[in-house]
Amino acid sequence: MGIILGDHQYGKAENRIVRIVRDTPRHEIRDVNVSSCLRGRFDEAHLTGDQGAVLPTDTQKQTSYAFAKTVGLASLERYAYALATHFVDDVEPVDQARVELEEFAWERVSVGGEEHDFSWVRKGQEVRTVAVTYDAEGTWITGGLKDLVVLKSSGSEFHGFLKDEYTVLEPTSDRIMATSLVAKWRFGAVDVATFDFDAAYAAIKTALVETFAGFHSLALQQTLYEMGKAAIEAVPELVEVRLSAPNKHHFTYDLAPFGIENANEVFHADDRPYGLIQASVTTDDAPPAGPAWQQYSGLV
Amino acid sequence: MGIILGDHQYGKAENRIVRIVRDTPRHEIRDVNVSSCLRGRFDEAHLTGDQGAVLPTDTQKQTSYAFAKTVGLASLERYAYALATHFVDDVEPVDQARVELEEFAWERVSVGGEEHDFSWVRKGQEVRTVAVTYDAEGTWITGGLKDLVVLKSSGSEFHGFLKDEYTVLEPTSDRIMATSLVAKWRFGAVDVATFDFDAAYAAIKTALVETFAGFHSLALQQTLYEMGKAAIEAVPELVEVRLSAPNKHHFTYDLAPFGIENANEVFHADDRPYGLIQASVTTDDAPPAGPAWQQYSGLV
Amino acid sequence: MGIILGDHQYGKAENRIVRIVRDTPRHEIRDVNVSSCLRGRFDEAHLTGDQGAVLPTDTQKQTSYAFAKTVGLASLERYAYALATHFVDDVEPVDQARVELEEFAWERVSVGGEEHDFSWVRKGQEVRTVAVTYDAEGTWITGGLKDLVVLKSSGSEFHGFLKDEYTVLEPTSDRIMATSLVAKWRFGAVDVATFDFDAAYAAIKTALVETFAGFHSLALQQTLYEMGKAAIEAVPELVEVRLSAPNKHHFTYDLAPFGIENANEVFHADDRPYGLIQASVTTDDAPPAGPAWQQYSGLV
Amino acid sequence: MGIILGDHQYGKAENRIVRIVRDTPRHEIRDVNVSSCLRGRFDEAHLTGDQGAVLPTDTQKQTSYAFAKTVGLASLERYAYALATHFVDDVEPVDQARVELEEFAWERVSVGGEEHDFSWVRKGQEVRTVAVTYDAEGTWITGGLKDLVVLKSSGSEFHGFLKDEYTVLEPTSDRIMATSLVAKWRFGAVDVATFDFDAAYAAIKTALVETFAGFHSLALQQTLYEMGKAAIEAVPELVEVRLSAPNKHHFTYDLAPFGIENANEVFHADDRPYGLIQASVTTDDAPPAGPAWQQYSGLV
Repeated sequence: MGIILGDHQYGKAENRIVRIVRDTPRHEIRDVNVSSCLRGRFDEAHLTGDQGAVLPTDTQKQTSYAFAKTVGLASLERYAYALATHFVDDVEPVDQARVELEEFAWERVSVGGEEHDFSWVRKGQEVRTVAVTYDAEGTWITGGLKDLVVLKSSGSEFHGFLKDEYTVLEPTSDRIMATSLVAKWRFGAVDVATFDFDAAYAAIKTALVETFAGFHSLALQQTLYEMGKAAIEAVPELVEVRLSAPNKHHFTYDLAPFGIENANEVFHADDRPYGLIQASVTTDDAPPAGPAWQQYSGLV
Repeated sequence: MGIILGDHQYGKAENRIVRIVRDTPRHEIRDVNVSSCLRGRFDEAHLTGDQGAVLPTDTQKQTSYAFAKTVGLASLERYAYALATHFVDDVEPVDQARVELEEFAWERVSVGGEEHDFSWVRKGQEVRTVAVTYDAEGTWITGGLKDLVVLKSSGSEFHGFLKDEYTVLEPTSDRIMATSLVAKWRFGAVDVATFDFDAAYAAIKTALVETFAGFHSLALQQTLYEMGKAAIEAVPELVEVRLSAPNKHHFTYDLAPFGIENANEVFHADDRPYGLIQASVTTDDAPPAGPAWQQYSGLV
Repeated sequence: MGIILGDHQYGKAENRIVRIVRDTPRHEIRDVNVSSCLRGRFDEAHLTGDQGAVLPTDTQKQTSYAFAKTVGLASLERYAYALATHFVDDVEPVDQARVELEEFAWERVSVGGEEHDFSWVRKGQEVRTVAVTYDAEGTWITGGLKDLVVLKSSGSEFHGFLKDEYTVLEPTSDRIMATSLVAKWRFGAVDVATFDFDAAYAAIKTALVETFAGFHSLALQQTLYEMGKAAIEAVPELVEVRLSAPNKHHFTYDLAPFGIENANEVFHADDRPYGLIQASVTTDDAPPAGPAWQQYSGLV
Repeated sequence: MGIILGDHQYGKAENRIVRIVRDTPRHEIRDVNVSSCLRGRFDEAHLTGDQGAVLPTDTQKQTSYAFAKTVGLASLERYAYALATHFVDDVEPVDQARVELEEFAWERVSVGGEEHDFSWVRKGQEVRTVAVTYDAEGTWITGGLKDLVVLKSSGSEFHGFLKDEYTVLEPTSDRIMATSLVAKWRFGAVDVATFDFDAAYAAIKTALVETFAGFHSLALQQTLYEMGKAAIEAVPELVEVRLSAPNKHHFTYDLAPFGIENANEVFHADDRPYGLIQASVTTDDAPPAGPAWQQYSGLV
């Protein structure tokens, strides 16, 4: 038996870049967290310590900030693509690069009913995510969001489930359903240079949220499938949507000992444990995912 | 030398209560984190273990949930006041009670342009805070907010400061100013039963944010004072505003080594350390604060 | 084009179970966070809302707590295996189950030099992890640890790296190397019923830490490979070790403006960004990994 | 009614300083988080924006790192005292300075049974805290710890408590008692230059933990008082100890529906809500606390 090096990768994680466009009195802002990950022929760095094939993570950082100026962040996806292709095309030992972004959204402060030119308040709602992976075989682009907390106080049932000797749960035809949604979606063939990713993002978020709200749910599983389907229908360039939904339990609080009726009006929002449902919805002609879902931090 | 018991208090912290009003098809929601703290004659519990004067923290929890139904949460302040007065007036050894609330705001989902009756998305912006302290001497009500992240990309200077042998900072007449604001305000004499605290909250938040945005700043210190002043001017029932502002540093990134000009367009948003500025703004005839600022967790 | 359901799974995450063995005056404690994940024929739950094949996550919770008594937690791996096989063997629609554990370690309080029978202080160092995956094809067992923070103030170099036009980093032959290690390892053929997983854990942790300390490092990449190799050499039942190491940068602070020499004595421990290095070390005859690395939360 | 400036203060929070002593092959390490807070005549900065009296927070940062070299961190308290006195004595508008430290402890890696010269693993248990406040009236020194998680699986009762109409809790004579302790202590007259604060810290921690373990508890309140008393008895220079103890509830899990007996063997460790008990224990001749307890972040 011998011991050998397996998969490996490295990069610079969480560059906190804020880009202001100030060519006119009315500024624009993009606030992102950028991580770059290189995959390639770095075996010697591990096996002998020879760093001759290793572009330092510090260099990747400098490049991320430099591209924030030269490429700009008007489009998150085009910025990520520019970085990824640079690393692969210009740095010899790099075979594949993945650039991951988180975006923190801001909205303009309104002063006396007028939008302010250069003052913002952080929206604080969901975080938008982007990942672009590039190698000699092609380009894979995924989008997503996380920390989108939604709740409905009616229109959610759960009954008819499988029972065994450890089942004590009562079926219900009216409960609170709430989750902190994580969604990721994979684009099929799109022209990186021209596709309107921001419009797609808005349409997908709307489809997800409206379906969560409007669809009468027999289970969180069913709602997730409908949400994924609605997203693909809203943006035909999508070939897959993946959804992760912790079931944030809201338990009807027992007020009977105090002679108080509680008709689903007072709930305890519990922390842990929580149900966790995950599902993928795809088109039936989706191309192979390749490295699209191989997250930077996913190797370990 | 003898050893004696000093100040002491106890209660139940972080009851995560969600209250749905569902008397009509259009539901309402309040989502709060409730902590109750009792101060009084509990010496024996500490000195001998005799719990005869100690109303269990579990009982305080039950009461918090019960009052969410019987009193309701339509007004956060009236709910807190009802709890506090109950503990002092109805539980003999209790001399003073403090009830603290955090509120997590939700906004209705819009489906096809129509507000949905019972589905919400968490706003995710600032957390509203309330504290009511009650004893035989009176009632003290404070409001507040936290986690309100604001940024302006112009209109902020910092120069003319004191220098010593450790000063290397360069003065600037144009920088990013950003903070994650914590604000607390103290009401003077208001009628708890009728005062419109929600309207006051909205007016104060507007005053704080508009002043942050609109006031040309020579320093964060100056901006804080103006914000506090604007809040008091907006809601004359206020007698004091306290503000805590971490200076979330955004450093202009040095791109000169790459021959790239960076005219305050690309910034690194740093984590630590950070400047931390705190100030109180009061009316010149403010009544004594009494226990208004004595937070539950503030004893230790 | 049609839209179809892809991969899906569900379960109960983060059951916070504490198990006390108190058959004698000297108690024992196990403190774990248990997540169970079921994979199988749950399509109807997604497609039509029919829950007939869905064992509720609440039932999985009850089972996790019940097994903490009946199976016990003396061995984390045997507990996880018992749960996983129960779900697959006893619940018809389940094809594969994965049980993941985190363990929080406690050490006995010493009172006057004597170990106390039933009082502990939480160690607070690394968190131990376990994952058991079971289906008709076999059993896959992985172990691991996370949050193990190590630092060496010498014996670490970094030079001879690749340079491009964005490279400004200076090479160094003496720097602080620090990381918050995440490690996972995969066992080959072991007898679940009898293998001493606790001894293996201790041996692997020792191998990782001693190698980090003792190996003179030309780069974090090299150190990681050596750590993985040492772990496999220490426990021959291992067939693969995966390591994730954020390079927690400690920058030598520039005190020259104050006429103070700083010969690698005063450092700023920076938060973000950070280098992130990940690598796998395997035996050259390792069996296929199958679902061993398919984490519960890894689908999305 | 006029509006005026009230209390105000500012400083630099969370300088993450790591100090290595490397004069011999066997290095030493101190890893701290330093915050400095200045109080004084800074009104103009707030009222007019004139920064002439404001020493920048950046300068405070530089000073903190410089003193880490010139004063050193061999004694946390003497380092904090040196910083605080420097700010007050050397910076004209400063009336009072407070320096707060958190220390993260490391232990040497053992390689083959030998302590390594320059490699450490972070202990990960409690965080030690220090605060030194200095002005023309004197010096106030407090120590403390936080995040010390302790648990006892027997020797803890809770009964005989006060009941009202919301009381449903059952009394118990055997329960798990667990907390994540925060403790702070105030020193009376000690010679900053020579007092052995490290020895005092060790003695206090031992007293707190041994009392938690060894004292048969009728309530967490009683245990806290005994812990504070034991600390003062162990270190006679103490004049006050303040303790904050969240009651981390461990609920006996109901396995009766499955015909399984659970004699306090399987517990659910709940997150929220939690009881929160706070108490001060003092000597009967303790001098006034002055600003000793006025934490940097405590104004708001």
